[in-house]
Amino acid sequence: VTAPLVGVLGGGQLGRMLALAGTPLGIRFRFLDPDPDAPARQCGELVVGRYDDSGLLAAFADGLTVVTYEFENVPAATARLLADRAPVFPPQGALAASQDRVPEKELFRSLGIPVPAFAGVETLEDLRAAGGPGGPVGLPCVLKTRRLGYDGKGQAVVRTIDELAPAFASLSRGVTGDGSTGGLIAERMIPFERELSIVAVRGARGEFAAYPLVENVHAGGILRRTTAPAPNVAPALQRRAEDAARAVMERLNYVGVLAIELFDVGGELLVNEMAPRVHNSGHWTQDGAETSQFENHLRAILGWPLGPTGVRTPTVMVNLIGTWPDPRDVLALPGVRLHLYDKAPRPGRKVGHVNVLGRDLVEAAARASAVEALAGARACGPSPARA
Amino acid sequence: VTAPLVGVLGGGQLGRMLALAGTPLGIRFRFLDPDPDAPARQCGELVVGRYDDSGLLAAFADGLTVVTYEFENVPAATARLLADRAPVFPPQGALAASQDRVPEKELFRSLGIPVPAFAGVETLEDLRAAGGPGGPVGLPCVLKTRRLGYDGKGQAVVRTIDELAPAFASLSRGVTGDGSTGGLIAERMIPFERELSIVAVRGARGEFAAYPLVENVHAGGILRRTTAPAPNVAPALQRRAEDAARAVMERLNYVGVLAIELFDVGGELLVNEMAPRVHNSGHWTQDGAETSQFENHLRAILGWPLGPTGVRTPTVMVNLIGTWPDPRDVLALPGVRLHLYDKAPRPGRKVGHVNVLGRDLVEAAARASAVEALAGARACGPSPARA
Repeated sequence: VTAPLVGVLGGGQLGRMLALAGTPLGIRFRFLDPDPDAPARQCGELVVGRYDDSGLLAAFADGLTVVTYEFENVPAATARLLADRAPVFPPQGALAASQDRVPEKELFRSLGIPVPAFAGVETLEDLRAAGGPGGPVGLPCVLKTRRLGYDGKGQAVVRTIDELAPAFASLSRGVTGDGSTGGLIAERMIPFERELSIVAVRGARGEFAAYPLVENVHAGGILRRTTAPAPNVAPALQRRAEDAARAVMERLNYVGVLAIELFDVGGELLVNEMAPRVHNSGHWTQDGAETSQFENHLRAILGWPLGPTGVRTPTVMVNLIGTWPDPRDVLALPGVRLHLYDKAPRPGRKVGHVNVLGRDLVEAAARASAVEALAGARACGPSPARA
Repeated sequence: VTAPLVGVLGGGQLGRMLALAGTPLGIRFRFLDPDPDAPARQCGELVVGRYDDSGLLAAFADGLTVVTYEFENVPAATARLLADRAPVFPPQGALAASQDRVPEKELFRSLGIPVPAFAGVETLEDLRAAGGPGGPVGLPCVLKTRRLGYDGKGQAVVRTIDELAPAFASLSRGVTGDGSTGGLIAERMIPFERELSIVAVRGARGEFAAYPLVENVHAGGILRRTTAPAPNVAPALQRRAEDAARAVMERLNYVGVLAIELFDVGGELLVNEMAPRVHNSGHWTQDGAETSQFENHLRAILGWPLGPTGVRTPTVMVNLIGTWPDPRDVLALPGVRLHLYDKAPRPGRKVGHVNVLGRDLVEAAARASAVEALAGARACGPSPARA
């Protein structure tokens, strides 16, 4: 019996948690990351270098059973080069569809899945036409870079006509500051009641499974708290979310875990965005579900049977942002499962999370508040999409 | 915040599972093992060399927060040398008490905890006096090496007077064959109803917690199946087992996880042996308990708060002996959590285990039988201590 060797593009916390989930299954890991201190370095072989170094990619791919990635901004050329040497899952079409917000929304719309009104924006005139009076998007709207945004970076809220020009100016140099934005997108700002997400997994033979919808609270563009399962979810709502996930995955011939962020607007679901990978809003599954998203992603990309996705215990996931409290203080609290990423503290950086379990969500939420008090986290900060 | 660095003597599966439990808590690991292919090598830094190499031990100890071990046969000189450089937990007295079956049993007896009748045996005449008519041990008895026995090695059952001499001859060269037996011990063979064990943990400030008693089935001297919690345990039985564990741990000023194997003889508990470490009969806690034995051992030796030891889900642990089935076949079964050790297959070798969860023990046991059928395991083979 030869151990499967999984190659992971990116050695961050998601790669690290994939390895921690897969090692007991007899899976070995090799990571590629430019950072020699990448969080996954303790959990497998780390190849240090650039994602566009073709010689390095060939060495990285040598002997791999399968390649996967922990971030969606994998260069298309990288994915193509690797695909010549080993299967790459999720498939390249999923990368393309999730790297640019315009085709991403067009994909959902083509499947009959509601998305907020949007328009591609190349010039200030495009933005004025989209967001101005009578425009297809209107105000308030959110202006975003089409590519490379994350954790609220590359976004600006526009509430008045006067704010259109400054927002355009602030974003037109892109997230990286070099103008490689791939353009902008204007999206109608949705007065949502809450943010939900669904994590689903599709196997190599088309098997499909989905975790229950969860409820997410963001602050400053960063996920702070996930409640799993989301309270007050009618079966029809869960079914609609699962149907959307299944439709997208079938269209893309998807293999692996996919996450979709949704706005709940009076029981109507609008897709915000998707991530073709394990996702922060699925971290609760490590301790609260019958199979973790990390294990299910690995099972899927290796062609193994999927694991059950039911809830074992109601769980509230609390992100640790910027820094983390003394582990002794966290571990003295009831119901906690601590997950640190071995990252240096830095403002706004996700450095760990705590899964907080309870007999019910009331107990889990109360316990989570105690964790947040320790961590200095503010779960209920102003959300950019609320007026 | 500096990450604690835990040094582990031995890089086998127990060390590997300590690291898999501790990495999410921000703990780093360094292992010392003579085998460059030790199972823990993927999960931390592996120092390859002998346990009695004092120069290597000094390098191994450099910068460690604490030292622990995954096997009890750590040479006393090794533990002393390391103790000059870092705290060693469990303490050296626990090593001494568990390395030799005679002082081990004397320790329990001195605390008023019942053990089977026993006698130290240096010569065939000693054995005849102990096991013969009117002797303190009687027949049938089990003759064992005082030191270095494991998984049924270094043991012989003696049923008749005629078997005394051949058993003595077969064991007097010891487990390693070089005569370094430290002598033998004759123990009365107990007509037990079942084998139980208790895993307990004691913190650096004397805090004590115990997992529920579990029921173990051995075959050929090797643990095959653990049922957790053990069925039909009256509160008084659990209390007696916990009291025994607490008494031994307090006497030894113990810090860390300790396992005690017990015979249940009509509701009376007799101590068989103890292990000053995480234990195979505690592996169910990884998936079935509120905190795993591995996490609790680390919490204890680092002076962190202990975690709760309650049952999350009834669990049957099935050992994979000699070889392991295709992971795809295991993972297609309901309720399974697979743990492979990355060891080469070899007859009689523990290469992994499966924790099988169920709504109740009836369901977990039925599911476990399906795993055993796959694995070719026989949970109900003849047990050497049954007549």
